[in-house]
Amino acid sequence: VAGEPIPLVALDLIGISVFAVSGALAAVRRDLDVFGVLVLATVTALGGGVLRDVLLGATPPRALRDWPYLAVPAAAGLAAFLWHPQLRRLNRIVLLLDAAGLGLFTVTGTAQALNAGLGYAGSCVIGLLAGIGGGILRDVLLLEVPAVLQRDIYALAAVAGTVLISVGYGARIIGAHRTGSHALGVAWEVAAVAVVFAIRIVALRRRWSAPHAH
Amino acid sequence: VAGEPIPLVALDLIGISVFAVSGALAAVRRDLDVFGVLVLATVTALGGGVLRDVLLGATPPRALRDWPYLAVPAAAGLAAFLWHPQLRRLNRIVLLLDAAGLGLFTVTGTAQALNAGLGYAGSCVIGLLAGIGGGILRDVLLLEVPAVLQRDIYALAAVAGTVLISVGYGARIIGAHRTGSHALGVAWEVAAVAVVFAIRIVALRRRWSAPHAH
Amino acid sequence: VAGEPIPLVALDLIGISVFAVSGALAAVRRDLDVFGVLVLATVTALGGGVLRDVLLGATPPRALRDWPYLAVPAAAGLAAFLWHPQLRRLNRIVLLLDAAGLGLFTVTGTAQALNAGLGYAGSCVIGLLAGIGGGILRDVLLLEVPAVLQRDIYALAAVAGTVLISVGYGARIIGAHRTGSHALGVAWEVAAVAVVFAIRIVALRRRWSAPHAH
Repeated sequence: VAGEPIPLVALDLIGISVFAVSGALAAVRRDLDVFGVLVLATVTALGGGVLRDVLLGATPPRALRDWPYLAVPAAAGLAAFLWHPQLRRLNRIVLLLDAAGLGLFTVTGTAQALNAGLGYAGSCVIGLLAGIGGGILRDVLLLEVPAVLQRDIYALAAVAGTVLISVGYGARIIGAHRTGSHALGVAWEVAAVAVVFAIRIVALRRRWSAPHAH
Repeated sequence: VAGEPIPLVALDLIGISVFAVSGALAAVRRDLDVFGVLVLATVTALGGGVLRDVLLGATPPRALRDWPYLAVPAAAGLAAFLWHPQLRRLNRIVLLLDAAGLGLFTVTGTAQALNAGLGYAGSCVIGLLAGIGGGILRDVLLLEVPAVLQRDIYALAAVAGTVLISVGYGARIIGAHRTGSHALGVAWEVAAVAVVFAIRIVALRRRWSAPHAH
Repeated sequence: VAGEPIPLVALDLIGISVFAVSGALAAVRRDLDVFGVLVLATVTALGGGVLRDVLLGATPPRALRDWPYLAVPAAAGLAAFLWHPQLRRLNRIVLLLDAAGLGLFTVTGTAQALNAGLGYAGSCVIGLLAGIGGGILRDVLLLEVPAVLQRDIYALAAVAGTVLISVGYGARIIGAHRTGSHALGVAWEVAAVAVVFAIRIVALRRRWSAPHAH
């Protein structure tokens, strides 16, 4: 993932702002005060990345080292606090951007763990946590059983992304040890994000749901 | 903050014991057993500092390295378990000491993060977490939406402390790189604690509350 | 604990699979989907060890470095998802194995912390967290006040184990600095696991319960 820092950071910040809006809207719904809304926005947006960095031993987490990672969720949270009725009308766009953020965080988290030398299974767990960890923390703080554990195939879309990145890394298409061209590596990562995005969107439209125990 | 270890540690342990009492009383109210009361006392007292140290990569956390950090909340929790009716009558004193603990943990947490080389935004987040993290963990374990996210201006008092410490660090009044006298640095830190304390107490008396979304 | 890796890892994986079954059954009871069941199984099985490693600074945690640590809870969780009615009939065996897992995780966690140079009080806390941390995370994710904080003497059995390991370490019977024979050290650790197991089982049979505040 390294090598193309500027577009990647831009994408990262877009994903963060969308996750922040989702956290802020959930907090407004529960009537938290303005500080609670900002905390929920920040935790939802950055929680997955902080868990990823703490588990990899990459402390202090990147979200605390670069101020835009804190300014963006604060601004997004404040905007959601002020204009939440309008944002709710944008619900479909928020869902689309959220699916993109899920794909992005999962893919970059898995790749970061693999580049740090972790094995495939561990890296998939790190990538999954980077993608869904913020939403789980949001739900725990709001006293809800994490949505990702009970509904639809949100998490299974992320699993597909971690598998694709692992395959690309194993085939030396991506990662610091890649043998192919840089452009091919970037294309592979973009494709993995797109697959997560597509599974998530199709599942939403068709109301797919993961099986429950009988 | 370094340089004056003995009074600082003493203040730290006073703050820890007050936070421990608040956690223990909450646990007694929920009818936890004696072990649960001790765990809640310890988590409330040490949770903020442990989060601070884990995020800064300063592991094992100080609370696990020095035994008084574990003995004090255990003793305070046991005292609250045995004498909780009397302690409730001291409610006003507990609130005063809690405000002092909030100021102290926020100020020392922010200063520790700045001295560790973290930027201003990240250090303010660390300081805030050091001040309010223990209370959030207490509420999550007791299945309550964290009080700090919904009521009054507890957290905003802490934010004022992080800002004052950042200003003092930027002006080289405090911190390892300070250019002024040691006494001036200590005075600045004491003033920051006092500001957090004063905002918190005035807000309690006047029942100030942070705005909610309309 | 080092020196005898193969039987220890085998015991570790047995403990993990039992904790995973307990997490998966709790998730099935709350009607989570298959992904939620696998997450709960994994968090319950590995959460204590991950907390232990993060607090000791031993990142990435062992559970993410060795794939069997992830494959075993996934398999146990899937088995519980598919055959939960049969597993419930095995409730007594699950309780026995769970008591063994509690003893094992507590004992190895305490010993690991002592060998890492942490003091007695901090090491006992780490060992306790290794033993009960996974169950606490399971309960928080399912919105239950952690069972270990309100019922019976589950945690106090673990405390006995941490004390025995500390005594053995202080007397140089176990640990990297031991002066006695290797066999004596192993016997001491096995005895500590057995004491935790016995206290837990006797407490279950006699319905012992820790005191609550009056």
